[in-house]
Amino acid sequence: MKLLSPDELEAALRDIGARSYHRLHPFHALLHGGRCSKGQVQAWALNRYYYQAMIPVKDASLIARCEDSDLRREWRSRLVDHDGAEKGDGGIARWLKLTDGLGLDRDDVVSLRGLLPATRFAVDAYVHFVRERSLLEAVASSLTELFSPVIISERMEGMLKGYPFVTAETLAYFSKRPPQARRDADFALDYVKRHAETPAEQQAVLAALTFKCDVLWAQLDALYAAYVDPKHVPPGAFVPQE
Amino acid sequence: MKLLSPDELEAALRDIGARSYHRLHPFHALLHGGRCSKGQVQAWALNRYYYQAMIPVKDASLIARCEDSDLRREWRSRLVDHDGAEKGDGGIARWLKLTDGLGLDRDDVVSLRGLLPATRFAVDAYVHFVRERSLLEAVASSLTELFSPVIISERMEGMLKGYPFVTAETLAYFSKRPPQARRDADFALDYVKRHAETPAEQQAVLAALTFKCDVLWAQLDALYAAYVDPKHVPPGAFVPQE
Repeated sequence: MKLLSPDELEAALRDIGARSYHRLHPFHALLHGGRCSKGQVQAWALNRYYYQAMIPVKDASLIARCEDSDLRREWRSRLVDHDGAEKGDGGIARWLKLTDGLGLDRDDVVSLRGLLPATRFAVDAYVHFVRERSLLEAVASSLTELFSPVIISERMEGMLKGYPFVTAETLAYFSKRPPQARRDADFALDYVKRHAETPAEQQAVLAALTFKCDVLWAQLDALYAAYVDPKHVPPGAFVPQE
Repeated sequence: MKLLSPDELEAALRDIGARSYHRLHPFHALLHGGRCSKGQVQAWALNRYYYQAMIPVKDASLIARCEDSDLRREWRSRLVDHDGAEKGDGGIARWLKLTDGLGLDRDDVVSLRGLLPATRFAVDAYVHFVRERSLLEAVASSLTELFSPVIISERMEGMLKGYPFVTAETLAYFSKRPPQARRDADFALDYVKRHAETPAEQQAVLAALTFKCDVLWAQLDALYAAYVDPKHVPPGAFVPQE
């Protein structure tokens, strides 16, 4: 292992995204191409709700282990983005507008009844990673946000065009996210470029991003297997009505 | 929720097994029916290795939070079963004889290169469950062993008959397990019947067994999707040679 320059480290991070980010997953091609049934879109939104709901738990876990007031203050904006300035505001509330718009019962969504166990295991793995690994790795695991503005614009365009049951209002979550994601990713990228000072730390940063890509990919694998092919819904998980 | 008698609790536990234990998963029908390719059997053994390797970590995590010397001593026998009395002995060593027999490189197996991320997330979820939930739930999550002697006898018979590359020697892991599993399951069942004294505790015990069935089921879902249908191998995971 040799020491990379900060720019070489950034290039290696972007290369991981180009090979492993879930934009490449076949489920997204179906979803964005308007080729999912309403039940499949519901299953996606229902499962992804758990990821959204746990993001502030993940971010608070990072803040909780951080001794630097500047970093805590910076990272705190993510809590505001997801939990909102007041009730009904923020990313989680906007995600529930999406599940409402798709005809899912809000109590069902929030209760996590019907969640795929594989979704829970992948999301919880992310929370545990942030609690247990080094602060540097915890920050690096957020770097999938580097790649999210592109997937979000593809998703909004494709879903509005492809599904009569999707409106700009139900997609409000996505219209708010890109500037937040850009700001957060720029900060985290700068942080890891400055703080990964040894080859071992740089490799840990790269492995953290690979891990996070796996977390996202595994969620789509589980959706695909349960609801697209071979349609093996695990015992107790959501069964679409149509 | 009403208070169940100990025998009603046992019946409810056995009912969860009858509906959700991974013996019902279609991957096992293929594996035990001799209908897997060698590459699919390799993928199963490679992934299941991680589960085997983490079982003593899980058991030590349970012992570590246990203030009762009697329970610690009883549970310690599980460490001996898996780690052995000496090097080369025990369940993990016997699992590596299986992966050796299937033509997998031992360094590859032990390194966890090629492991499906979904396997890692499911197994780690089990370890975290045992560390974070009540001791009663941690004990209850081991109760899938109630159902393992049947699946093991089906597996040994089916695999010896179905695969020319499988021998009684490579299946040594399974010939040793049933009496250990029976002793452990009897102890854990008696423990939860005596210690789940309120309806809430009984429901927690039932939920713990459901959780554990989900952990096992999710591992087979991931194997099926990656290596049987639709054969979507996630980035970086094991690719069979044949």
